[in-house]
Amino acid sequence: MIKPWPKKSSKNHGDFRIFTVRSDNKISPRTNTAHDFVVIETVNWVNVVALTSDDQMVMVEQFRHGSETVELEIPGGVMDPHETSPVATAIRELREETGYEGTGATLIGQVYPNPAIMNNTCYTVLIENCRAIHPVEFDSTEDMITTLLPLKQIPELVAAGKIRHSLVVTALYFYDLWQKR
Amino acid sequence: MIKPWPKKSSKNHGDFRIFTVRSDNKISPRTNTAHDFVVIETVNWVNVVALTSDDQMVMVEQFRHGSETVELEIPGGVMDPHETSPVATAIRELREETGYEGTGATLIGQVYPNPAIMNNTCYTVLIENCRAIHPVEFDSTEDMITTLLPLKQIPELVAAGKIRHSLVVTALYFYDLWQKR
Repeated sequence: MIKPWPKKSSKNHGDFRIFTVRSDNKISPRTNTAHDFVVIETVNWVNVVALTSDDQMVMVEQFRHGSETVELEIPGGVMDPHETSPVATAIRELREETGYEGTGATLIGQVYPNPAIMNNTCYTVLIENCRAIHPVEFDSTEDMITTLLPLKQIPELVAAGKIRHSLVVTALYFYDLWQKR
Repeated sequence: MIKPWPKKSSKNHGDFRIFTVRSDNKISPRTNTAHDFVVIETVNWVNVVALTSDDQMVMVEQFRHGSETVELEIPGGVMDPHETSPVATAIRELREETGYEGTGATLIGQVYPNPAIMNNTCYTVLIENCRAIHPVEFDSTEDMITTLLPLKQIPELVAAGKIRHSLVVTALYFYDLWQKR
């Protein structure tokens, strides 16, 4: 049985606006020795599997500043401080990034983006019967293009490495498993 | 067509041993205004889908210091500086963490863990016919238990939220897609 590591102390290492960095000094339950672990603290994220009534998925292309590449993704973003439900974030982000709105919204999965070094959760919300009915509302750091892709092509796009954002891949697996139930 | 953002300047914000933080000042191709983007620079990671000849998957349980939870995962780790191939890392990490060794090793997928804020890649390597033949070699920060789980149970464990590390979920989807080809 795996035991938790008791925490002796914790130290803040800086605020980088979208995340903070701390280190925790903890005791190994196996060796009884102390080690420091760096943790990135950040807010929760939501991504959206948005489908049209004719079996297409609403996707976005955007330049990503970590990889410095253009990525084919699904809509999504961070939960605002006042948002207590990932479903509310999903509906808002879908509208802001693509102008699409659907009917119903279902939480179909959640993951830790990186439980080794990050403390947050990423939720996947399914929204169906989506239609483009709003203007897009990009914030000043956004520049993206909405693309509709046939739902049946999605698994082969993942297998072929055309969709490469890990959290998008997890969302697509959750949808794959959800629609088979 | 999405355009890249020209970089005006870049600034280092600190070295946290397992990653460094920098910020880039870049110009939006849409609005022509400057913005700062924080990037976490780190090494590449590898995770391992390790199967036995009787259709079980070699999994590990360990306490994770970001989420502060015990997670059910697959073996994996960071590419050492001298390792130029993810396959070599996969074989080493499988042996060190579980004592298992298999025959052959195939790269079946790769993702950007977070292309928005991280610059690295995570590779998934499949190793088949695995058998426990070595002693485990934990480093001083490791404490894990190896578990074999029937391959056919894996998708339902993902759907039920029993496997929650996003990069593990992507690896399992890559395997799911790979074995259907």
